[in-house]
Amino acid sequence: MTRITLLGAGRSASSLIQYLLRHAPTENWFLTVADANPAHLVPVLAAHSEYARAVPFALEDEALLQELVSGADIVLSMLPALLHGPVARMCVQLGRHLATASYVSEEIRGLDAAARAAGCTLLMECGLDPGLDHMSAMAVIEEIRERGGRITSFKSYCGGLMAPDSEGDNPWKYKFTWNPRNVVLAGQSTAKYLENGHPRYIPYQHLFARTESISVPGYGDFDGYANRDSLSYRAPYGLDDIPTILRGTLRRAGYCAAWHALVRLGLTDDTVHLGNAADLTWRELLESYLPVLVPRAATETALAAHCADYLGLSMAGPEMERLQWLGLFGEQPVGLANGTPAQLLERLLTQKWQLQPADHDMIVMQHLFEFELAGVRYGRTSSLVVLGDDATHTAMAKTVGLPLGMAVRRLARGEVAARGVLIPTGADLYQPILAELAADYGIRFEEHETAR
Amino acid sequence: MTRITLLGAGRSASSLIQYLLRHAPTENWFLTVADANPAHLVPVLAAHSEYARAVPFALEDEALLQELVSGADIVLSMLPALLHGPVARMCVQLGRHLATASYVSEEIRGLDAAARAAGCTLLMECGLDPGLDHMSAMAVIEEIRERGGRITSFKSYCGGLMAPDSEGDNPWKYKFTWNPRNVVLAGQSTAKYLENGHPRYIPYQHLFARTESISVPGYGDFDGYANRDSLSYRAPYGLDDIPTILRGTLRRAGYCAAWHALVRLGLTDDTVHLGNAADLTWRELLESYLPVLVPRAATETALAAHCADYLGLSMAGPEMERLQWLGLFGEQPVGLANGTPAQLLERLLTQKWQLQPADHDMIVMQHLFEFELAGVRYGRTSSLVVLGDDATHTAMAKTVGLPLGMAVRRLARGEVAARGVLIPTGADLYQPILAELAADYGIRFEEHETAR
Repeated sequence: MTRITLLGAGRSASSLIQYLLRHAPTENWFLTVADANPAHLVPVLAAHSEYARAVPFALEDEALLQELVSGADIVLSMLPALLHGPVARMCVQLGRHLATASYVSEEIRGLDAAARAAGCTLLMECGLDPGLDHMSAMAVIEEIRERGGRITSFKSYCGGLMAPDSEGDNPWKYKFTWNPRNVVLAGQSTAKYLENGHPRYIPYQHLFARTESISVPGYGDFDGYANRDSLSYRAPYGLDDIPTILRGTLRRAGYCAAWHALVRLGLTDDTVHLGNAADLTWRELLESYLPVLVPRAATETALAAHCADYLGLSMAGPEMERLQWLGLFGEQPVGLANGTPAQLLERLLTQKWQLQPADHDMIVMQHLFEFELAGVRYGRTSSLVVLGDDATHTAMAKTVGLPLGMAVRRLARGEVAARGVLIPTGADLYQPILAELAADYGIRFEEHETAR
Repeated sequence: MTRITLLGAGRSASSLIQYLLRHAPTENWFLTVADANPAHLVPVLAAHSEYARAVPFALEDEALLQELVSGADIVLSMLPALLHGPVARMCVQLGRHLATASYVSEEIRGLDAAARAAGCTLLMECGLDPGLDHMSAMAVIEEIRERGGRITSFKSYCGGLMAPDSEGDNPWKYKFTWNPRNVVLAGQSTAKYLENGHPRYIPYQHLFARTESISVPGYGDFDGYANRDSLSYRAPYGLDDIPTILRGTLRRAGYCAAWHALVRLGLTDDTVHLGNAADLTWRELLESYLPVLVPRAATETALAAHCADYLGLSMAGPEMERLQWLGLFGEQPVGLANGTPAQLLERLLTQKWQLQPADHDMIVMQHLFEFELAGVRYGRTSSLVVLGDDATHTAMAKTVGLPLGMAVRRLARGEVAARGVLIPTGADLYQPILAELAADYGIRFEEHETAR
């Protein structure tokens, strides 16, 4: 029997828990699900009491953490990434394997030698992004290498979006399926990538204006904006000498130009508290950002026209349509006293972009490769679209949880030989996981290759 | 005898020490100057040994701090503002007065009741800005009030600049007389001010484009850009209901438009380390910021033309002249590995904007008032220009140190009645200090008033 202990069982763990319960009897697992509030797990685990139990958990209780880790063969963590340090240290101390969907932090990287010495594997970055991105990219990279090809360009985009049936009349075609604060503050730095051997930098104030248009067969067009650091992906993918590499985030076409207008207005700044009253209206706030004083008697449309003029946008254009749909020029109160602009915007968007119970989310990932083979240049596109089943088994929960569960399955079977800190860039992990995702869940990449 | 102890005697304390030594014999002061490296003070104090001595000092030595404070009637601090907490607490504990040129921090404000109970005065904001700005503004505000006028607008600008004879061929007409890092990172937030009763916000990406032109008789034109928070000046000045208030910083005309170009390029971002080599050249760095790939064979002028095109600037215009003068498009190495853009820019500017031994600095301050009196609208301008004497007695050292020394003189004479935390907005302080600055140092504001 393999004892698997999951730490943290929030909403995003739904598909992971379902996967673990499905395979526990045949794989001979005993599953312990530890959560701060385990009550909601009781009905989920009720029919599986022979091989699964729920227990309360608090990270600050070190004795409890020690007990849980020592009672497990594999620890699986869905805790927030920032909390993985103490968990990983305990795993190394007690010689237990760990699997998570979080990035390898400096703290985790520093445990590599000790983990090897203790004979345990810290298997990180096994969710969606990071996770499935590594697996699917490496499958293509290895395939091209085996054919003798030389990869000259790799661009990879991923986004957590809404399924077409759930976009409704929202012109942004976006709702929050992820931390709203992170969405509002996205990109507030300088993005770094590589183009034809040249480092390229995009400062925040241009980030949402310098996007790439991405098409996904059957799903239309998307905007891709560059992530903060694309260069760090070269080494783990074995692409140290690649001339062009870019990692980015997907939004529906038109989102980025409209978001750029919010950036230009100053509404994404999180460094200053405005000292405003909670009953300040959005139109009053917007007026404060315009260089001209707008008469208080101006209609909502007249204020919007001033704003369009300031930003150099057409009143009838797609950016102003999105800003007006948010109610930026209306009488709704901002509802938060002394907020930062970003906090006020987050509050508004949390209302406007709220996921409804019947909504379906959608994960889109696309890798774009260029490579040379026998003197011929090729383009290769790998595209993935995953739709959410319902409000519990969202596309996000499936694509984060299933790869992680499948990675643990390989670990439990003894099919992962490496010890120390690991990410799923090796064929021993990505091949069976990609195969299982396709066979059992229909989660598969569409491949498209053309000579140029 | 009044025992006065000065903590911190760096370069900026030169004029303060000179002032204290000048008045010590007649005012019956004994002066202790405590500095981490007191050796440089020995020749300065040699001729004054009857009433002045230098002692070594380290803030982390709490016993020494206690000894110094208990042996003083008034503690004067030119330590960095962040270090004033422990000094102020010791002063309150031992019932000693304190005077500094630093802003009232939350920590200092929290000592108000205890200081009153201990019968001591914590006299803060007694330098230039904050300090002389309060004193000179309050003198005009009180004068207008006494005449029965109602102030409707108050704008106040200050800048540490170069005297006209020291601007040389530098088209920015700026050199560092202050912390270079603060200059590079200036304004990286949202500026708040009030215009005709409306709050006004300027996000960083527009700050250096939305400037006001300021003229100072005999000294030409300046650009004024808004400081982070102008609203906090209403209460201490008794201007709670004023419709228009703005505090800003002065640069020579043309500086702000060129600095705005650096902001737009992304060169003031301090949030990302670029991973660059120290021998990366400035032209290579600039190329990385342009959306088009510039051929490596392009001349420096061709690269500059690409940049001008990107920014929508004229190659022959004043902004590009300033960027080219900095060497942004040349082969000079950035000289710092893995820097942030702001760190690389600071390093370049520290070379280009270095104060030379024979240079003279210049402090410019201007208050612009509008007020109504007996149905007539008036404009009132108060302007101050102070030139540095030499590299030791700079305009900065004089305008920070002399008001502080004069405030201490009033404190020592028992002419400051208030206890607790105080700033020099009361006539008991500003009247004698402004009079002494004018009579003994020729530091006086030019007043100009017109009916409109």
